[in-house]
Amino acid sequence: MRNENVKVVIWGFGAMGSGMAKMLASKTGVEIVGVCDRHEARVGKDIYEILGVDRGDRPSVIVNPNIEEVLTEKCADICLCATDSFTAKAFPRLKFVLEKKINVISTAEEMSYPQSQNPELAAELDKIAKENGVSILGTGINPGLIMDLLVVILTGCMTDVTHIEAKRVNSLSPFGPAVMEEQGVGITVDEFNAGVADGSLAGHVGFAESIRMIGDAIGWDVEKYETQMKPIVTNVDRKSPYGFAAAGNVAGVNMTGQGFVNGEVKIDMIHPQQIEPEMEGTFTGDYVTIKGTPEVNMSIRPEVEGGLGTIAMCVNMIPQVINADPGLKTMLDLPVPRAIMGDMRKMIK
Amino acid sequence: MRNENVKVVIWGFGAMGSGMAKMLASKTGVEIVGVCDRHEARVGKDIYEILGVDRGDRPSVIVNPNIEEVLTEKCADICLCATDSFTAKAFPRLKFVLEKKINVISTAEEMSYPQSQNPELAAELDKIAKENGVSILGTGINPGLIMDLLVVILTGCMTDVTHIEAKRVNSLSPFGPAVMEEQGVGITVDEFNAGVADGSLAGHVGFAESIRMIGDAIGWDVEKYETQMKPIVTNVDRKSPYGFAAAGNVAGVNMTGQGFVNGEVKIDMIHPQQIEPEMEGTFTGDYVTIKGTPEVNMSIRPEVEGGLGTIAMCVNMIPQVINADPGLKTMLDLPVPRAIMGDMRKMIK
Repeated sequence: MRNENVKVVIWGFGAMGSGMAKMLASKTGVEIVGVCDRHEARVGKDIYEILGVDRGDRPSVIVNPNIEEVLTEKCADICLCATDSFTAKAFPRLKFVLEKKINVISTAEEMSYPQSQNPELAAELDKIAKENGVSILGTGINPGLIMDLLVVILTGCMTDVTHIEAKRVNSLSPFGPAVMEEQGVGITVDEFNAGVADGSLAGHVGFAESIRMIGDAIGWDVEKYETQMKPIVTNVDRKSPYGFAAAGNVAGVNMTGQGFVNGEVKIDMIHPQQIEPEMEGTFTGDYVTIKGTPEVNMSIRPEVEGGLGTIAMCVNMIPQVINADPGLKTMLDLPVPRAIMGDMRKMIK
Repeated sequence: MRNENVKVVIWGFGAMGSGMAKMLASKTGVEIVGVCDRHEARVGKDIYEILGVDRGDRPSVIVNPNIEEVLTEKCADICLCATDSFTAKAFPRLKFVLEKKINVISTAEEMSYPQSQNPELAAELDKIAKENGVSILGTGINPGLIMDLLVVILTGCMTDVTHIEAKRVNSLSPFGPAVMEEQGVGITVDEFNAGVADGSLAGHVGFAESIRMIGDAIGWDVEKYETQMKPIVTNVDRKSPYGFAAAGNVAGVNMTGQGFVNGEVKIDMIHPQQIEPEMEGTFTGDYVTIKGTPEVNMSIRPEVEGGLGTIAMCVNMIPQVINADPGLKTMLDLPVPRAIMGDMRKMIK
């Protein structure tokens, strides 16, 4: 076992980045050596104070807005980059980290399979990573596990696959104001439709990635995919800690998507997200239904919570990314994610 | 993409080996180049005739009882070895294949994690594989996926794990006379107890492997494990295609097992197997319940069929084993299993 702790830098200290820090603080054989974030409320503060976690004998880590100061060549084994949803926006940051010869895990949804929508940037990241002898992975709960990797592993016990349906019915109630706004919780149907038309309402980002990941994994040549985004209109007033939707307004978003193979829909994605789904009889869960031989009908009830799940996936993949050959990796290339209940150093080759 | 088909030899042409051959015959980019089996009814026959599969323009493959003739150095990319349940019994065969510089997938349950009960043989296989530049894996539906790898991947979305329960409730009805006998279907309770005492009733083989695999994966130091084997006594006459249990006799086996960490049971395995479970209100399924943060409650209903599942897992892992670095591998080391719906050659690096 190596002597030194695994050293981690966190870039972006919002809900995801700070959640990862809290998780890392509960683990052994790993330490946070730097945090970069520009938010005024956090800059200059000790992360353990922000987290409300006893620092113990750990050195204090002060939030620094200047990445050039936080990230010097080989100062860490890995950087968790929790700043973006889109590959194009994340790209300059990811390039910067790789050129410091540091491995990266990105929370950007599109980075879970950048080959899908940004093949040139994916090739560029692969090249930069290899030149610098490090590796890069995008992951999270979804995309990253529930509607793609978990589907793929379940096809592993099948001799033949004819159709895949992945359905994630989740509650937005635990999320904060940013998610309420992104998903259109509380707005009118007209406002929702306008937001879809002008692209200001993102909804779930990831179908393009999950569909291609599944297709490439099992050898289906997905010639095109389509996605739809519809409002979930509530019939009753619904209230969550950070959201409110009056009867007749939008309680969330129903995202659907289809992957086509030889002109036929072979992959169906269904992902309604809303606050307080139980108020109208919707019960949350993750469902995978695969037609073929033998058929597989999987459910996880309730659904795996998105925030905690993403935090866990990113931290739990640290050893696999450090151990990987240099280059751009996806969840298809690496050994399976797993909880880290022992000394993280034992997991490093 | 490579030009030549992936070349496969199958050693053992019983239910598993012949099932793999049938599956391979439906795939592209792969061909069966040899089959070794000693069963009189099969020796000298063309496998496509035995399988009832149209040979098309494939060369005929004659079942040969002499492995020295079937397996010559580098004559195939991989050998599927479906001959044994126990590592010690499989060892000389596996060694023989590795020394011909051919990768191996073994269906032997103990080989799914030979580090558990045969660490010396595991180390020896690792050494032989490395010396010959090839790799070796043991897999199947269980051990191999349902009560271990699937558990591990589900812990991947958790920040903390406190207890794991894996439960596989399956029907033995689809199985043939050999399984009826191994599992004690139809015998009296006294005969069952005598069979457990003298070791002639094996029940499910794999708890020692699954428990250690989970523990090693997530960093729990499993200091000991225990297993129990009890008869499932039926209150009604139960009849399946190859089995019959009169009321008062044994319809199957209830296997349970526990993994201990720091004196506490942290891993519970529950695996009742019987014919016609529905006759007394038992519904089949695979269940994983993981306590911790967040909790995960997964079910697959009905359970993934064992025979087809094992056939699929072994065939579907062929590319991963060919692509692996030399040595002994487990399901923890390799990229996730996945169905093969395209040209297998595209999956070879």
